[in-house]
Amino acid sequence: MERIGFVGLGTMGASMAANLLRAGAPLTVWNRTPGQAGPLLEMGAQAAESAAAVATRSEISVVCVSDTPDVEAVLFGPGGIAEGATRGSLVIDCSTISPDATREFGRRLAELGVAMVDAPVSGGSEGARLGTLTFFVGGDEAAVVRARPVLGAMGKTITHLGPLGSGQAGKAVNQVIISGAYLGVAEGIVLGMRAGLDPRRLVEALSGGSAQSWVLANRSGRMIDDEYPLGFRLALHRKDLGIALELARGLGLPLPVAALTASLEDVLMAEGHGDEDMSVLAHAIQAGATGDAGAGRRPV
Amino acid sequence: MERIGFVGLGTMGASMAANLLRAGAPLTVWNRTPGQAGPLLEMGAQAAESAAAVATRSEISVVCVSDTPDVEAVLFGPGGIAEGATRGSLVIDCSTISPDATREFGRRLAELGVAMVDAPVSGGSEGARLGTLTFFVGGDEAAVVRARPVLGAMGKTITHLGPLGSGQAGKAVNQVIISGAYLGVAEGIVLGMRAGLDPRRLVEALSGGSAQSWVLANRSGRMIDDEYPLGFRLALHRKDLGIALELARGLGLPLPVAALTASLEDVLMAEGHGDEDMSVLAHAIQAGATGDAGAGRRPV
Repeated sequence: MERIGFVGLGTMGASMAANLLRAGAPLTVWNRTPGQAGPLLEMGAQAAESAAAVATRSEISVVCVSDTPDVEAVLFGPGGIAEGATRGSLVIDCSTISPDATREFGRRLAELGVAMVDAPVSGGSEGARLGTLTFFVGGDEAAVVRARPVLGAMGKTITHLGPLGSGQAGKAVNQVIISGAYLGVAEGIVLGMRAGLDPRRLVEALSGGSAQSWVLANRSGRMIDDEYPLGFRLALHRKDLGIALELARGLGLPLPVAALTASLEDVLMAEGHGDEDMSVLAHAIQAGATGDAGAGRRPV
Repeated sequence: MERIGFVGLGTMGASMAANLLRAGAPLTVWNRTPGQAGPLLEMGAQAAESAAAVATRSEISVVCVSDTPDVEAVLFGPGGIAEGATRGSLVIDCSTISPDATREFGRRLAELGVAMVDAPVSGGSEGARLGTLTFFVGGDEAAVVRARPVLGAMGKTITHLGPLGSGQAGKAVNQVIISGAYLGVAEGIVLGMRAGLDPRRLVEALSGGSAQSWVLANRSGRMIDDEYPLGFRLALHRKDLGIALELARGLGLPLPVAALTASLEDVLMAEGHGDEDMSVLAHAIQAGATGDAGAGRRPV
């Protein structure tokens, strides 16, 4: 494998970088907040003093940070990848950011002779650890072919959706679809419990038909227990919905269920639930209930 | 098997009754609109001249009609099941109706010494034909035990959720969950197509992760083609959502995604889409788009 650099060693990035090391990649790493690289250095990674230094030592630099401004900073800020990257190198951005900004970043890198692929991920911290992530990929064919072995070391499903920015658009679609999935399951589970049904038997009954989904199978249990360990942070989904809603706005398209979910998530974040799993949406349904309306009413 | 009666030979009922005959049940049938029984009579069913006559000749009467007033009519109207049913017989209602009304009907039947089980179905016309339906079952343990072989001849998953009315509550939960599932997939697919992505590759990429669902696997194709053959009639889902929203209202519970879906479905029905498959919800998203906002904007 080519010499790989990794910028952004958060929950996702650290696990993804570890899988690159396991696949035998020569790896140089850097993180904005120091002290995250320890376990990777023990596995054989080299530490660099900046994103620019990572890029200088790498033929392919992988970026995995939080939001559009973070990607802009590690690419074009002081000590950023643009300062150190050599002509002919490749940047793979695994962050989830704006498709429009991605295209702009790609243009600026192209002026330096540096190629770019956007490859946002789905599959959460567990997928990152197990190397079972899904990558939504955008970029020129040649750049994507070059990125593929790197992505293959970190994930299972790698789908090239079109030119640069298409990966971000695909990820936005994923986040819109799960808005409806989580909200539907949240409302259904809370309704079933309020109606006096045994929720685990209910989930069993629902799983055989048109209500079947990953969310029902993997997140209804948290809603039943009313406990929301991570998982996938609500605040991050809200950030991603902002990207999807902006994309839709530009296309003149209404996204009612995404907008509704964003609004409920805003309330949950204001109430301090931003760092809980996204399934805490069930809490918004419960909290909206009038405590007394059901009183004296015999359960079903 | 006990002597079975079947009242309501629509798309669902006719297929379910046929599966009872295949399982060797002695079957008497009746339908409000005449002329539906032909194929069943050829398979060996007996025709009766009223629901009451069905009940008189049957130990177990299965009802499969559209809505709460229809069930009330075939149970308690002139020539209804209550007129003909003998003490010790059982009524299985496979219609999707109000849980509250179900309990009232059960009380009225109990006064005549007739037991009742509610067993609304999920799985559509295909499930009815193939005998793979899911039954959400409510009723006393003894009545449900008695109903089980009959349900088993018509479906695959039979889940007893609690006392009478619990089946209807479970079905309401199913319809709430699929509201979110359909709407999320509709918004996601339309967004992805507007953003210039290849929708079939997109669905492939989405299917490996948290966006996976029955709706994505089985209904995204109709949304991509913008053609909505049945399937599951939009107007029937809207009817079922009315039941779910009424149940939630009684429990003091908000169901934002169910209410949003009901509102979009009302518009679609007013525009003449009520008899199309529920996946026509994607049409509501497309129709809401401003035709010009995306003009001149290069696709992703």
